[in-house]
Amino acid sequence: MASSHGATDNEHLVQSADPDHPANLICSLCRKFYTLGWVTGTGGGTSIRHHDHIFIAPSGVQKELMQPTDMFVMDFNKREYLRKPTVLKPSACTPLFLAAFTRGAGCCIHTHSQWAVLVTLLVERDFGKDTCFEIQEIEQIKGIPKGRGKVGNLGYYDRLRVPIIENTAHEEDLTESLEEAMEKYPDTYAVLVRRHGIYVWGDNVHKAKTQCESLDYIFQLAVEMKKLGLPWTK
Amino acid sequence: MASSHGATDNEHLVQSADPDHPANLICSLCRKFYTLGWVTGTGGGTSIRHHDHIFIAPSGVQKELMQPTDMFVMDFNKREYLRKPTVLKPSACTPLFLAAFTRGAGCCIHTHSQWAVLVTLLVERDFGKDTCFEIQEIEQIKGIPKGRGKVGNLGYYDRLRVPIIENTAHEEDLTESLEEAMEKYPDTYAVLVRRHGIYVWGDNVHKAKTQCESLDYIFQLAVEMKKLGLPWTK
Amino acid sequence: MASSHGATDNEHLVQSADPDHPANLICSLCRKFYTLGWVTGTGGGTSIRHHDHIFIAPSGVQKELMQPTDMFVMDFNKREYLRKPTVLKPSACTPLFLAAFTRGAGCCIHTHSQWAVLVTLLVERDFGKDTCFEIQEIEQIKGIPKGRGKVGNLGYYDRLRVPIIENTAHEEDLTESLEEAMEKYPDTYAVLVRRHGIYVWGDNVHKAKTQCESLDYIFQLAVEMKKLGLPWTK
Amino acid sequence: MASSHGATDNEHLVQSADPDHPANLICSLCRKFYTLGWVTGTGGGTSIRHHDHIFIAPSGVQKELMQPTDMFVMDFNKREYLRKPTVLKPSACTPLFLAAFTRGAGCCIHTHSQWAVLVTLLVERDFGKDTCFEIQEIEQIKGIPKGRGKVGNLGYYDRLRVPIIENTAHEEDLTESLEEAMEKYPDTYAVLVRRHGIYVWGDNVHKAKTQCESLDYIFQLAVEMKKLGLPWTK
Repeated sequence: MASSHGATDNEHLVQSADPDHPANLICSLCRKFYTLGWVTGTGGGTSIRHHDHIFIAPSGVQKELMQPTDMFVMDFNKREYLRKPTVLKPSACTPLFLAAFTRGAGCCIHTHSQWAVLVTLLVERDFGKDTCFEIQEIEQIKGIPKGRGKVGNLGYYDRLRVPIIENTAHEEDLTESLEEAMEKYPDTYAVLVRRHGIYVWGDNVHKAKTQCESLDYIFQLAVEMKKLGLPWTK
Repeated sequence: MASSHGATDNEHLVQSADPDHPANLICSLCRKFYTLGWVTGTGGGTSIRHHDHIFIAPSGVQKELMQPTDMFVMDFNKREYLRKPTVLKPSACTPLFLAAFTRGAGCCIHTHSQWAVLVTLLVERDFGKDTCFEIQEIEQIKGIPKGRGKVGNLGYYDRLRVPIIENTAHEEDLTESLEEAMEKYPDTYAVLVRRHGIYVWGDNVHKAKTQCESLDYIFQLAVEMKKLGLPWTK
Repeated sequence: MASSHGATDNEHLVQSADPDHPANLICSLCRKFYTLGWVTGTGGGTSIRHHDHIFIAPSGVQKELMQPTDMFVMDFNKREYLRKPTVLKPSACTPLFLAAFTRGAGCCIHTHSQWAVLVTLLVERDFGKDTCFEIQEIEQIKGIPKGRGKVGNLGYYDRLRVPIIENTAHEEDLTESLEEAMEKYPDTYAVLVRRHGIYVWGDNVHKAKTQCESLDYIFQLAVEMKKLGLPWTK
Repeated sequence: MASSHGATDNEHLVQSADPDHPANLICSLCRKFYTLGWVTGTGGGTSIRHHDHIFIAPSGVQKELMQPTDMFVMDFNKREYLRKPTVLKPSACTPLFLAAFTRGAGCCIHTHSQWAVLVTLLVERDFGKDTCFEIQEIEQIKGIPKGRGKVGNLGYYDRLRVPIIENTAHEEDLTESLEEAMEKYPDTYAVLVRRHGIYVWGDNVHKAKTQCESLDYIFQLAVEMKKLGLPWTK
């Protein structure tokens, strides 16, 4: 992942008047995610693949204040930065985003949503460590696709399963277990990280964002159900 | 429900500078509903009847980003689309909206509110399946009208009853049981759908929106009451 | 309270470019209160006294959408409307607002806050009907004044007491018991209404608004304390 | 802390078109903090040190409505006000802010966050009075620096400790115990105040704000964990 020559010059890669340009979209999405409590305290991140360019929000910045010029741009095939803001650090999530893009994703969102964290704690306590989150017969499950290469979304009677991996001291060290989870659950579009948050991806920005919303809705509902003594599955 | 000739040409039906035009109102309402958590992840929907035209938000779109040009327009009497955006799918809620309009409604709102979903789960657990949600002596009940053709709203000492129907695999298959609930509870302006959400309608946009707010307030309060061990009825 | 001749003509009473004009302030406050969940579904209301003019938000309107031209204006001494929008109904809270103004208030706010409603239910269950809400040793108590004619605010070690009155079928019928509570608790700037909400007033708009915020903060904290098994008083 | 001659004239100290000027930043931060529920009812406060100038939000004002001209400016070395708005009161938090600046902070934030207050109550009940808040193995802990003069942030396996001091009748009387806590926990960037809130500081505005967000996230999570019966430490 060596920085290519002139990596800081490619301003044109992040400057566009089109609000749907990846560099602009990452900024507007993160402003929205901030109000949802997903990227508080510089946590979380978002990355978009556009053809062979990967746009990545930097590490350690206030996500609701980001500007397009803060974006890193990487060549997907060469794994080289085409643009690297000199005063910023690349996201530690980068290898995890790349794992999603390698599986065909067009966008990957990482949140520290408290509902996601609480769900990982509840699953561990009630079902043990080597289990995934499972829920069924909730309408919002229909917001999640059946799986890569499959047509359509999950049905109301399908059981939603989201794998959970254990957290590590360094974010980049999650990559191996994330990829293992992707292998073990080939249909999943998300992986929960215990005591940490979630990675959600989708074929494009629209799908990644709405799938992330649907999952967060389901996790919040699941936590409230636990408070009220209601079971997740039949 | 055949598409009429030229269904994609009728741009004038959705273009107006008036913020109270149905095509504009659906967009501004859905932006508000998104912040309330009612239409997250492309869930939920809204439809307005204006004379013989039915305006319907499309399926599968981000509800807070909709534009007037995304709207479907149907002739109420002929059940034919006067305008059909070619790249979008009509809402699966359409037959349910039509059931409300047939009963005289001017606007129908469908949300996936978590409070509504939790209430349906709590009613099932505590009172059984064939029961409606009931609550009394809460001031906000006065935000709900007495019933179609009746003058005025419920009083503080009236018991609010909202029927609950069972969810189905496909949204359109809810139509029959929704209509049955409308027959069985002729005074209701809302039907809860178990593990799914709610349909709320009203004589006009103002009433549908404020009734939906009042009901959601009551459901949230009811869930909090359960957490605190407080009964819904005396 | 007869309508005076020409009551609908006095447009100048509600038209001003000054954002601090009462007719403008009521609108901007209610937009804020809507986002706080205090005036959902047309519930709640706000009134400002400016010299001998009482400005009152109308009944049954969407509080976040109100315009200055929607305001009623009453002569405080004559109890006659100087301005009465013809298509709107005066607020049923009017006699309760007048009770506060008679006690020297400059602004009175009525909310349906769920935290207020839950507190009235918890007090009834845990301490009985003829008791007020009591809490002590919470810093935010210092946001509430000691009482009319007294200098300064409550201290950290003072016990906050907010009387609770029983709800009635019709809002105007609360007036007598509200006035009784004002007599019995002469230092209070607020009266809770069981299963309904709260009336909060203050010497001016700033004080009524910030006292209402402080009380709502305390009620929310008190409800969360109950969920966690933490006592309100020592 | 005598007011210097001409303290009300130094308008240039608070007037700037730069949104990152301290007088502007305090206003924009407090608007954001208001929506987070941190500074409701005039509670809380924020102060920025810029070279030898300390900018301080006044006492008793609506924090979301503040203007740059409302700011107090103090000379850090002389402890004299360079600018003192005549109609406003200086913040009672001033000596506490100065304690943080003396330790090298560039910004100090005081909130009445309910999550912070609830955490102080839970720690007292479950672990006794002379204990700090402790939590471990939550990813967001990595948002908190290791300590003054140390490089980098806490790791995932580090235990976060936030000292708690007892509240006093008058805010300025907290200074001594705040400074004691700073001595006893030299690595901390925050001190909780029982039944009151929290003081959080950082090397600069960015760090103080994001550390405050990370801590508030952790406190909210900790409260939710208690509701669900999940332990904070292993």
